[in-house]
Amino acid sequence: MSKHNPQDLLLLFEHPQEPVFVPKGDKAGDNGFVFAVPDTYLSDQYRPLGALLTTRFGEDAEQIPVKKISIPPLGEILDIKRDENFSLFLEKHRHIAGKLIEIFMGMRNTQDLLSMACYCRDRVNPYLFNYAFSVALLNRKDTKNLSVPSFARLFPDKYVDSKVFTRAREEAKIVPDGSRAPLVIPKDFTASEREEEQRLSYFREDLGANLHHWHWHLVYPLNGERAIVAKNRRGELFYYMHQQIIARYNFERLCNKLKRVERLEDFNQPIKEAYFPKLDSVVASRAYPARVANQKMQNIDRAVDRVRLDVDELKRWSNRILDAIQKGTVMNEKGQTIELGENDGIDTLGNIIESSVLSPNRNYYGDLHNMGHVVLAYIHDPDHRYLETFGVMGDVATAMRDPVFYRWHAYIDDILQQHKATLPRYTIDQLNYSGITVKDVKVQSQGSSSNVFNTFWQQSDVDLSRGMDFQEKGAVFIRFTHLQHQPFTYKITVNNANPTTKLGTCRIFLAPKFDEGGSTWSFRNQRLMFIELDKFTVTLKQGANTFTRASTESTVTIPFERTFRDLDTRRPGANTAELDQFNFCGCGWPQHLLIPKGTAEGMAGELFVMISNYDDDKVDQNIDGVCSDAGSFCGIKDKLYPDRRSMGYPFDRLPREGVNNLQQFLTPNMRVANVTINFKDKTFKPKEAFV
Amino acid sequence: MSKHNPQDLLLLFEHPQEPVFVPKGDKAGDNGFVFAVPDTYLSDQYRPLGALLTTRFGEDAEQIPVKKISIPPLGEILDIKRDENFSLFLEKHRHIAGKLIEIFMGMRNTQDLLSMACYCRDRVNPYLFNYAFSVALLNRKDTKNLSVPSFARLFPDKYVDSKVFTRAREEAKIVPDGSRAPLVIPKDFTASEREEEQRLSYFREDLGANLHHWHWHLVYPLNGERAIVAKNRRGELFYYMHQQIIARYNFERLCNKLKRVERLEDFNQPIKEAYFPKLDSVVASRAYPARVANQKMQNIDRAVDRVRLDVDELKRWSNRILDAIQKGTVMNEKGQTIELGENDGIDTLGNIIESSVLSPNRNYYGDLHNMGHVVLAYIHDPDHRYLETFGVMGDVATAMRDPVFYRWHAYIDDILQQHKATLPRYTIDQLNYSGITVKDVKVQSQGSSSNVFNTFWQQSDVDLSRGMDFQEKGAVFIRFTHLQHQPFTYKITVNNANPTTKLGTCRIFLAPKFDEGGSTWSFRNQRLMFIELDKFTVTLKQGANTFTRASTESTVTIPFERTFRDLDTRRPGANTAELDQFNFCGCGWPQHLLIPKGTAEGMAGELFVMISNYDDDKVDQNIDGVCSDAGSFCGIKDKLYPDRRSMGYPFDRLPREGVNNLQQFLTPNMRVANVTINFKDKTFKPKEAFV
Repeated sequence: MSKHNPQDLLLLFEHPQEPVFVPKGDKAGDNGFVFAVPDTYLSDQYRPLGALLTTRFGEDAEQIPVKKISIPPLGEILDIKRDENFSLFLEKHRHIAGKLIEIFMGMRNTQDLLSMACYCRDRVNPYLFNYAFSVALLNRKDTKNLSVPSFARLFPDKYVDSKVFTRAREEAKIVPDGSRAPLVIPKDFTASEREEEQRLSYFREDLGANLHHWHWHLVYPLNGERAIVAKNRRGELFYYMHQQIIARYNFERLCNKLKRVERLEDFNQPIKEAYFPKLDSVVASRAYPARVANQKMQNIDRAVDRVRLDVDELKRWSNRILDAIQKGTVMNEKGQTIELGENDGIDTLGNIIESSVLSPNRNYYGDLHNMGHVVLAYIHDPDHRYLETFGVMGDVATAMRDPVFYRWHAYIDDILQQHKATLPRYTIDQLNYSGITVKDVKVQSQGSSSNVFNTFWQQSDVDLSRGMDFQEKGAVFIRFTHLQHQPFTYKITVNNANPTTKLGTCRIFLAPKFDEGGSTWSFRNQRLMFIELDKFTVTLKQGANTFTRASTESTVTIPFERTFRDLDTRRPGANTAELDQFNFCGCGWPQHLLIPKGTAEGMAGELFVMISNYDDDKVDQNIDGVCSDAGSFCGIKDKLYPDRRSMGYPFDRLPREGVNNLQQFLTPNMRVANVTINFKDKTFKPKEAFV
Repeated sequence: MSKHNPQDLLLLFEHPQEPVFVPKGDKAGDNGFVFAVPDTYLSDQYRPLGALLTTRFGEDAEQIPVKKISIPPLGEILDIKRDENFSLFLEKHRHIAGKLIEIFMGMRNTQDLLSMACYCRDRVNPYLFNYAFSVALLNRKDTKNLSVPSFARLFPDKYVDSKVFTRAREEAKIVPDGSRAPLVIPKDFTASEREEEQRLSYFREDLGANLHHWHWHLVYPLNGERAIVAKNRRGELFYYMHQQIIARYNFERLCNKLKRVERLEDFNQPIKEAYFPKLDSVVASRAYPARVANQKMQNIDRAVDRVRLDVDELKRWSNRILDAIQKGTVMNEKGQTIELGENDGIDTLGNIIESSVLSPNRNYYGDLHNMGHVVLAYIHDPDHRYLETFGVMGDVATAMRDPVFYRWHAYIDDILQQHKATLPRYTIDQLNYSGITVKDVKVQSQGSSSNVFNTFWQQSDVDLSRGMDFQEKGAVFIRFTHLQHQPFTYKITVNNANPTTKLGTCRIFLAPKFDEGGSTWSFRNQRLMFIELDKFTVTLKQGANTFTRASTESTVTIPFERTFRDLDTRRPGANTAELDQFNFCGCGWPQHLLIPKGTAEGMAGELFVMISNYDDDKVDQNIDGVCSDAGSFCGIKDKLYPDRRSMGYPFDRLPREGVNNLQQFLTPNMRVANVTINFKDKTFKPKEAFV
């Protein structure tokens, strides 16, 4: 009998539909581990076969002892059936997830947690289990250093073309491990070129972008103990992270000769953009339903989901929120007035709109963002008469695939921007950094002239096998194609005219130089197009300073490999330190999407660099050893948001009087470089470098 | 080495996606058979692994030698990709199927056929292979006695709720053969009671009804050598079989308090009835697309399917056909006029409308029935912009599931009825049988008073495992629920006042006694509601004759078990004689749907019995030993249709002058019994009898 190892908890993620008594963590050629659960832990389906199953599966594998504890009743947690889809947008599901998280959080030690998790695992809906168990591991003091495995490896069906699974089963059954070749997924599988929205599929359906979105919502749950929900500035981060996704999407649209996304403002108009996901939900054994062209949002009345909502109610909520923005105050549940302050108003509004349990008055301001997702996710079956589950908009793991996601979030963002429009404009003093001048900004991609970004298609391989249940073991790789850019460096020269060394925050943004009509932007419009590329602290000695920064160091992104880290955490040789805190790092914009696609002829961009005064930026905390790779989009685990400024600063507000374009906006501590994004329509093999 | 056995051909049907070198026909505990194909026969994917695979899979199984022959190029046959769906409604697919059938038909002997089939099997689309190979086996002289296995066992995904497949994989992997319990499929899985069309789901989604429809189209291919297509009276049978399906559907609708189906006559109106099939296509690794509520038919332009068609074209075709009906003549391709004769006009029109290669002028009259299916099947993606495959209406194996199937076929039937309305009415002489009087008609169900039919729900089990590929072996049963009736007998008393023994054809029909408003029918309407229950020859000696006939003897139906006959045709002990000719018998209305559902309170019906003059009915041929179970709906293999009368006689035409209701229609050789159909809303276990 091996002794208790908290890493064993992670094995429970693997093969989510295979019962606990089936070996986990097995590679071809060895026999893995089985959880030796008390007979009473077996589900009703398998208890009668108890001994038979233990012999069948347990014989050769290493046993992980599971202590018998007294199990609290699961009650309503079982109201989400094993074969349902799970949605964080549904209050019922969030509430149930909150209950399960509470149970996992309440276990006295990891041994009890393992026991409880073993008991729950084969009874509870597998998505729900994964979510609640992940949140608990992330937040428990005794497990927070464990690395929750990548969701895409456990539920690959939410991320890749359904066609691949039959091929993967064939490969696993027919071809011996070692002779298997990666299964190539076509880049365009959800639509053809006839559909202009398809030009954005590489972005909407990107594995990393969708994983980021899933992780973000894992890190920022909507329900549960207040301590878990009330992360520093979460409402504001909801605003900012989604604003940046829209800005990036619009940038990509311009690269593809499409206009900026139209916000979904009129809820009674047919929605012209359709979406056919071609994804299966393996747990539900159903395909994700399609959203066909020209459907209208409809009133929802689904007893099974405990949701009943008129489309008009969405409008009422949004009108109340707009009223609050006009007044500059919101009303809490006790009828008290809360000011929407210059700095924290956006946080309050983010909480109201998202909405989480942090909303000061959910009854009055409602559940706008979530319920918009729900209405759109059920557009094909609003009253459950067809017994249909939700479309991709109902699942944070898949929502970004649908064009309507961006139309909906553009609408949400527009409301929040109306609040931003009421705020005092930044004065020159609030923007400038006295004595600091950015003298030069350059971008260098190897082999190119200055200020050129190079983008192209790249293939990458991911092993699906840990998420494919009831089949032959051994790795099965798929090969998919995603946008990539050549790594580059910034070279920034800053003069410090002050008599002392100064600290500054270097903020780097990128926007298209021209709008969809080819005209230069007004600042009011361009400010919404700036995408954050990086943000970091610099030390400026007196006089000239030149520093370089690699694109891979971005605090917006995480490295691609991290999202597909190996699950084999209990293997001899696995370096636990390396694996630490990967879970939080799973949140973060994918590095390969840092730079928009550009165009074959070269897309003109404006690279904006600013050095702000660290005295006004700094947050006093120690983040050494904490994964802080993608702090801009995700915050830092259990810490304050690492920048005291309003998120999106300096572009989060309307400009001061007299500023009509970017040049007029600049203070000496800012500089703009004209850059070009060159796209090469060629697909590079995995790890093959752009030449 | 075993010697060549034509039964080996049947093993090629099994596990349609597993390559030929994987054992077939294996049961738990034995090792099955593998086809020892020449290395050059392996597909490109597996040729490099040749020796490895032979060792891996071939070692323990019995080898079936496959002779190396010279292989003709497959050419355009490969234009239907392995992972596409296959549709007989698409001209491109029919054409390709015709080519493949031709190749299979042209093989000199069964050994060459086996070799060719082995070569094709892992290259050609699996549905296409199954179809073309089935048609060839049915029509080749040296294979026509082989029993083509049930399509539902090979492609269960086309017949049962997709949810069951994950459970089946779990069962196969976790539970040892012998301890497995059937997986129960809920009766209602495609919609809830909110959707009134759901009341008919037991009929639309019935496994036997859909298998019948598949088999019918297998027996009556649209393309191929003329000898295969030009079966006796096939155009008329197209009309009659579908007319009877509509009549049965309307009967069931009345049982469920719904009005008769509305024909889909206006092609520009939104179609209010939606359908969400919840079926997967395993070969395409895609779910069957849904047809959401209120979509309109749209112009089709899909290069991939080589089809481009405006909805208006459908109307033009149908107007030309209606013109022809008005004129009483059609024009062939040479511009010659062909009369629509009293007896054979319907056959010509059936061929024109269906349409098969027998249509005298496909250019002019078009492809109405097939293209209606196509337009409806692609309603969600008419121009292939979303890279979607067709909905259930695109596949003869699944089309009957969709409510719009009945709306479309009601439209088709209405056109054909307009032709029937032009025909001379049957005179009393054409209806009567001089000297013959039906004195009494009784129906007896055990334990009930006379003239009562008892219906209820029954469960049945089917083994899916032969159609589930790349997983553990051994039987996996599903248990589904279907309508059933208690077996009953007719007792019919006939007086023969003639001085000699006479032969007669006893024709038994059933119709609801009242229309949806509760009124008695006009004959013009009721005649379209009569469903055929049985038809058989009787010998009438002078004077009184009483004969009984069991419901199970019906010439409309086939026994339920036959549709799920075992595939293990090469097992020791398998009785080849018993298995003979099952293929053709796969066509036939399912016995368990012989009697409509009725109602809990008892639905009033009129049972019509007629003895017609055999001299006018008889067809001189020997059908001994030929499967002729369901001749009324399917004809008899390689024989003439077994009734010389117009199909549907005596209800296929408008009544003679003065006949306004059924009573007025009767001649002495006819009789009507008032019957009641009692439905008991209880589900009986497999093989459990109604008490």
